[in-house]
Amino acid sequence: MAPVKKGILERLNAGEVVIGDGGFVFALEKRGYVKAGPWTPEATVQYPDAVRQLQREFLRARSNVMQTFTFYASDDKLENRGNNLKLTGAQINEAACDLAREVANEGDALVAGGVSQTPSYLSCKSETEVRAIFKKQLDVFVRKNVDFLIAEYFEHVEEAEWAVQVLKTSGKPVAASLCIGPKGDMHGVSPGECAVRLVKAGAQIVGVNCHFDPMTCVETVKLMKEGVEKAGLKAHYMVQPLAFHTPDCNRQGFIDLPEFPFALEPRILTRWDMHKYAREAYKAGIRFIGGCCGFEPYHIRALAEELAPERGIIPAGSEKHGMWGSGLEMHTKPWVRARARRDYWENLKPASGRPQCPSMSVPDSWGVTKGHADLMQQKEATSKEELEQLFDKSKTH
Amino acid sequence: MAPVKKGILERLNAGEVVIGDGGFVFALEKRGYVKAGPWTPEATVQYPDAVRQLQREFLRARSNVMQTFTFYASDDKLENRGNNLKLTGAQINEAACDLAREVANEGDALVAGGVSQTPSYLSCKSETEVRAIFKKQLDVFVRKNVDFLIAEYFEHVEEAEWAVQVLKTSGKPVAASLCIGPKGDMHGVSPGECAVRLVKAGAQIVGVNCHFDPMTCVETVKLMKEGVEKAGLKAHYMVQPLAFHTPDCNRQGFIDLPEFPFALEPRILTRWDMHKYAREAYKAGIRFIGGCCGFEPYHIRALAEELAPERGIIPAGSEKHGMWGSGLEMHTKPWVRARARRDYWENLKPASGRPQCPSMSVPDSWGVTKGHADLMQQKEATSKEELEQLFDKSKTH
Amino acid sequence: MAPVKKGILERLNAGEVVIGDGGFVFALEKRGYVKAGPWTPEATVQYPDAVRQLQREFLRARSNVMQTFTFYASDDKLENRGNNLKLTGAQINEAACDLAREVANEGDALVAGGVSQTPSYLSCKSETEVRAIFKKQLDVFVRKNVDFLIAEYFEHVEEAEWAVQVLKTSGKPVAASLCIGPKGDMHGVSPGECAVRLVKAGAQIVGVNCHFDPMTCVETVKLMKEGVEKAGLKAHYMVQPLAFHTPDCNRQGFIDLPEFPFALEPRILTRWDMHKYAREAYKAGIRFIGGCCGFEPYHIRALAEELAPERGIIPAGSEKHGMWGSGLEMHTKPWVRARARRDYWENLKPASGRPQCPSMSVPDSWGVTKGHADLMQQKEATSKEELEQLFDKSKTH
Amino acid sequence: MAPVKKGILERLNAGEVVIGDGGFVFALEKRGYVKAGPWTPEATVQYPDAVRQLQREFLRARSNVMQTFTFYASDDKLENRGNNLKLTGAQINEAACDLAREVANEGDALVAGGVSQTPSYLSCKSETEVRAIFKKQLDVFVRKNVDFLIAEYFEHVEEAEWAVQVLKTSGKPVAASLCIGPKGDMHGVSPGECAVRLVKAGAQIVGVNCHFDPMTCVETVKLMKEGVEKAGLKAHYMVQPLAFHTPDCNRQGFIDLPEFPFALEPRILTRWDMHKYAREAYKAGIRFIGGCCGFEPYHIRALAEELAPERGIIPAGSEKHGMWGSGLEMHTKPWVRARARRDYWENLKPASGRPQCPSMSVPDSWGVTKGHADLMQQKEATSKEELEQLFDKSKTH
Repeated sequence: MAPVKKGILERLNAGEVVIGDGGFVFALEKRGYVKAGPWTPEATVQYPDAVRQLQREFLRARSNVMQTFTFYASDDKLENRGNNLKLTGAQINEAACDLAREVANEGDALVAGGVSQTPSYLSCKSETEVRAIFKKQLDVFVRKNVDFLIAEYFEHVEEAEWAVQVLKTSGKPVAASLCIGPKGDMHGVSPGECAVRLVKAGAQIVGVNCHFDPMTCVETVKLMKEGVEKAGLKAHYMVQPLAFHTPDCNRQGFIDLPEFPFALEPRILTRWDMHKYAREAYKAGIRFIGGCCGFEPYHIRALAEELAPERGIIPAGSEKHGMWGSGLEMHTKPWVRARARRDYWENLKPASGRPQCPSMSVPDSWGVTKGHADLMQQKEATSKEELEQLFDKSKTH
Repeated sequence: MAPVKKGILERLNAGEVVIGDGGFVFALEKRGYVKAGPWTPEATVQYPDAVRQLQREFLRARSNVMQTFTFYASDDKLENRGNNLKLTGAQINEAACDLAREVANEGDALVAGGVSQTPSYLSCKSETEVRAIFKKQLDVFVRKNVDFLIAEYFEHVEEAEWAVQVLKTSGKPVAASLCIGPKGDMHGVSPGECAVRLVKAGAQIVGVNCHFDPMTCVETVKLMKEGVEKAGLKAHYMVQPLAFHTPDCNRQGFIDLPEFPFALEPRILTRWDMHKYAREAYKAGIRFIGGCCGFEPYHIRALAEELAPERGIIPAGSEKHGMWGSGLEMHTKPWVRARARRDYWENLKPASGRPQCPSMSVPDSWGVTKGHADLMQQKEATSKEELEQLFDKSKTH
Repeated sequence: MAPVKKGILERLNAGEVVIGDGGFVFALEKRGYVKAGPWTPEATVQYPDAVRQLQREFLRARSNVMQTFTFYASDDKLENRGNNLKLTGAQINEAACDLAREVANEGDALVAGGVSQTPSYLSCKSETEVRAIFKKQLDVFVRKNVDFLIAEYFEHVEEAEWAVQVLKTSGKPVAASLCIGPKGDMHGVSPGECAVRLVKAGAQIVGVNCHFDPMTCVETVKLMKEGVEKAGLKAHYMVQPLAFHTPDCNRQGFIDLPEFPFALEPRILTRWDMHKYAREAYKAGIRFIGGCCGFEPYHIRALAEELAPERGIIPAGSEKHGMWGSGLEMHTKPWVRARARRDYWENLKPASGRPQCPSMSVPDSWGVTKGHADLMQQKEATSKEELEQLFDKSKTH
Repeated sequence: MAPVKKGILERLNAGEVVIGDGGFVFALEKRGYVKAGPWTPEATVQYPDAVRQLQREFLRARSNVMQTFTFYASDDKLENRGNNLKLTGAQINEAACDLAREVANEGDALVAGGVSQTPSYLSCKSETEVRAIFKKQLDVFVRKNVDFLIAEYFEHVEEAEWAVQVLKTSGKPVAASLCIGPKGDMHGVSPGECAVRLVKAGAQIVGVNCHFDPMTCVETVKLMKEGVEKAGLKAHYMVQPLAFHTPDCNRQGFIDLPEFPFALEPRILTRWDMHKYAREAYKAGIRFIGGCCGFEPYHIRALAEELAPERGIIPAGSEKHGMWGSGLEMHTKPWVRARARRDYWENLKPASGRPQCPSMSVPDSWGVTKGHADLMQQKEATSKEELEQLFDKSKTH
């Protein structure tokens, strides 16, 4: 039987740092269990060993939150994606809860049930229909008794508000994170206003996840915090960014980058970039600090190592690391041994080994480069029909 | 009971392409189970689930070879690395054989027992002592009945010859791969001559692994092949390179790069780079094609996808991929759907998102830049007898 | 005897495009006649042939304005710079006027007498003293009967206002350009407000010069224009930017960049970048379009070539060029001949040939990099004395 | 009347360093007096002031050699280029001699008459015809009594040998420099063998000019020197490279680079790069050190400043410079004053300010990139006719 653990709000109210886990879809895509494009989590049923192993690695890196791998696991999404496995959303959500609980029981972690944006909202279904989608997932989370809930990866604050309101009916703590940058949501609502609306909808923790690199995300959460404080409200803050450098992004984030999703490798953050991110997030007053797409277990470990003094906890996984690369002290070559120190890694500007590649991309939406001209056109479409036509054109191309 | 499989030489003699697996030390370091610096495989005993899972992912990506995770698992190395787990080499080697066999039985893969260079050779122990080290590992491989043997990651052809001769006593097929580039081994023996010596020592398969990027490794194996053919000998060829771009390396390979081992992220090859590599290796007449440090399962899958027409086999893992990113056809955004085509990915020059970083590094061994001056000094300073020798060597270097 | 030419305001009122000339200090520094650091124009007296030749090259490129080479030619500045030639400001200013007039008479160009910011202002001398400095230069310009006046390269709008008011006393048309970017002047006055104040002070033409790259400068002038229009005022607009790419600049502009002033080569704009700049400036409603530091005659010619359709004038210098590189049609190599077309040059992303250099610098004022730490400190100084002390420290470094 | 000066061979025999001048065609193209494509020197007649001024700037930078601006000034070339000025080769060559002599008389410089490769050779005219072309130019040089002769910019050693033999008939000293890199001439003759053949043909000074960056050229001259010494011969050595970084060039040099000739700006060497080049050339035993395309007067001054200790001469132009940027000591901003020191500039890695550009290009001849596909095809042509057809195709493109 698992020991009684402190809940998410008890921890945050006590000023503790809570380390989140990393993204599942990108990590499992590289391991062969998730398909880019649909990005749906059938693997919880199909390949539970693979999912459990990744979850364990995050736990070992000292995550305090095991998110159920239920991203895009709403029935409307699964159907949309050509679900030829005939798995129901309920089956996937249940399996995800069981896996997360199993691993959470092995350490100091809570289980968080997660819902994300729906195709129903994007295709303008009614509010009732959209709420029903979230309710269906929530039913599983309540049955499986998760510790708290996260509404994450929402591009429109309105849909996130609905999700929060549905999740709140469970009586469990609710966090809400949008996939937006400093320019706000897709309808142009500013981060500050988004945060205020989410808090008013009932979220106790607000923040952002995915779509932008860590520094941009911390910046965005700062704007949220300012908004909440100006409105005389209170909240806790969370951030779960990409593990990719994205200085050249537009409002839509990394999806616009020409490298998305299969050539993002040169942008992957090093563990030392993660140290800077963890420190910056902490300094900004954010206490729920984790990751999203691109995060591997060693990235989470780096967050936990940076904040080890504040938390008084060294990750189990650090047995195989040592702070600031101290494991290198045992390397055969003396000049590699000489790299076992903080200032070496902190100041290094790593090369790409790709002299014929640029350092910044032109996002598709800029409409400038010749090479992407076909893609551009689609963005100028102003209706779904027009968009579809343009897309068909590009496919024959 | 496992079906009877074709052996490695039967496959190569028949002209089949054999896909190797990827590197274990780097992949497991990122997952939290191997320590950079020592790089030793205690995880086979400590964390068998984690090792088995990685091995399964390579199998799912369509590797035909499960290498035992026995890199640096010789007794002299383990001792050297401050083995505080008190595990013997035999325990680690045995556990590694069991894991590899278990996974190999789940698909069309052979088990290869591997030995690598020893600290005994580098510290100038006698030939008898060095041979005894290899013999001890071989005893386990014979007892566990691996399918064939690989002597890999040797910087000096002389030590590799000794290893091959020891392994040959088992009667099993023997492969030999050096971690060298086009300039040859650390004593200046050219790739062509190295290959001839290895074939004469009894290796049926020769090639290179680690230390350099794919194109450099293929180039080096071509030089080996020329040497072997000029000498009127015959062999099969193998290549298992890094998954990092290393155009700026010296003779010592990526270990000299300032980014080794904790800031290599911007150099990671994309899956599309892997397609080019697989094709180039195939065109060069190499038929045992795999990977080393930096390879993740999706990299191996890309090799198998590129050579699917030649092999008539599509990887199991492609269920979650689709050739040339065809899974993107289901993406929500039309401009991402428009990327579901070969020429898009083949021609993309990915950006690093790091505008303040260079594209090429100055290797430490150049001794030019101010920024590395302190490292240089440490090469003279850190430890006394051994280090002064190394410094002297590096000065003549 | 020179023909009667249309004045600057007649041209601008008629909607004509006026092409400015390029910067003198950088061009003549490379030719060996100006010293970086002092940047003063003794060459007008010392090496008149060299100055005249450059001026002629700008005329040949189709500049309509010959600025007197009187940058930093105020008595306080000359003294400050250790004027060991014992030349008075008056001597230099007079020689500059004669040279400009001589060349202007050879074509369709006007002579503009220029004053720039003074050390007196920066060291907090009284308004009366500062105004007296400008008056002294103005006396020469009136005596030599220049066609109009430019107050340029001011970091503080207040000083520029004083200059404009002094210059206005002559009855000649007055232009005013600040060396600021979109963030405004050194006291934080926005571009819009700066422009309004300059117009109110009497300037008929307002804009920016130096310190930033063309696109940033055009952007800044747009903000000025918005400000002027919002205030219900009227003005003409001018822009004379750097010929260096400076996306990584702070408020102080290129002087903060580590490459200033002796390693800016990789940032030099191509002639094709100039075409884009000319078009963008024109579209923004700017009609006095020229250049500053880094501009060579071929850069000015490119402006004139881009706007040839609007102006109905092809530069004399185009005899040795041809639009969009058409001169290449006569090249020996066919693949070079194939480059004689607009889309080739318009789309080319030129490489630096410097793989160990970054694409963006960390400006000194960021205070981040270790290598510039000494310089940083000085910037954190809050008083002149403290600054001086820190600087002295850095000199012993 | 000019004083009697030491001849070129007396200087070199005495071990003196001789500083060459810079390239004329690129510098005058930027000033508006030479047309890229034809690259012919009609300006000597058309715009003598402009040519004289540039020549004077090189003298002021401390060049000891004023080369006549007679590049491509053979009758066959001029005709070929659509010479609509109806200037004869003789007129141009004579004017060039007069200008060079006038400036040389103003300082310690010699006049060198230069011939370069001919279209007659490339179109396979007879040896007699080609020799006659050189003889015609030589007649002018003899009549004008230049101090010595240079056969430069030859891609084929055979044609250079003929030129040397013709020039030798004058009795004047003869230098010969090829535009080749370490891989040798266009017929595959190695640098060593080229040098031996030139020495045997009668050249007292041999080396390379143009086509490659300084370090590559120094490397090539080293190979020449080795060849000459192995053959038991004696010679003096010269080098006059590009002022562009060209690490990504093939055998044809910078002409193959996509940036040639109108987008080479990011590749321009800084003055500090020139210091390194001058030192390296000196260490290699080369004593005639100058420049070619891309060199501006400040580049030549940097060579003279670096070798000032050896030569005991500081350039006149250094009055406006100061060694290692010491002029900055007078800059207004303290952090710029702090840059007035050698180690700052020596260690700086300058940024390009172009984050969307790569650091290395794919030369046209690689045939890889899609964007250059049309040009590539031409290179795959195996006959002149085929080439012409392909070229025509690309023109309609």
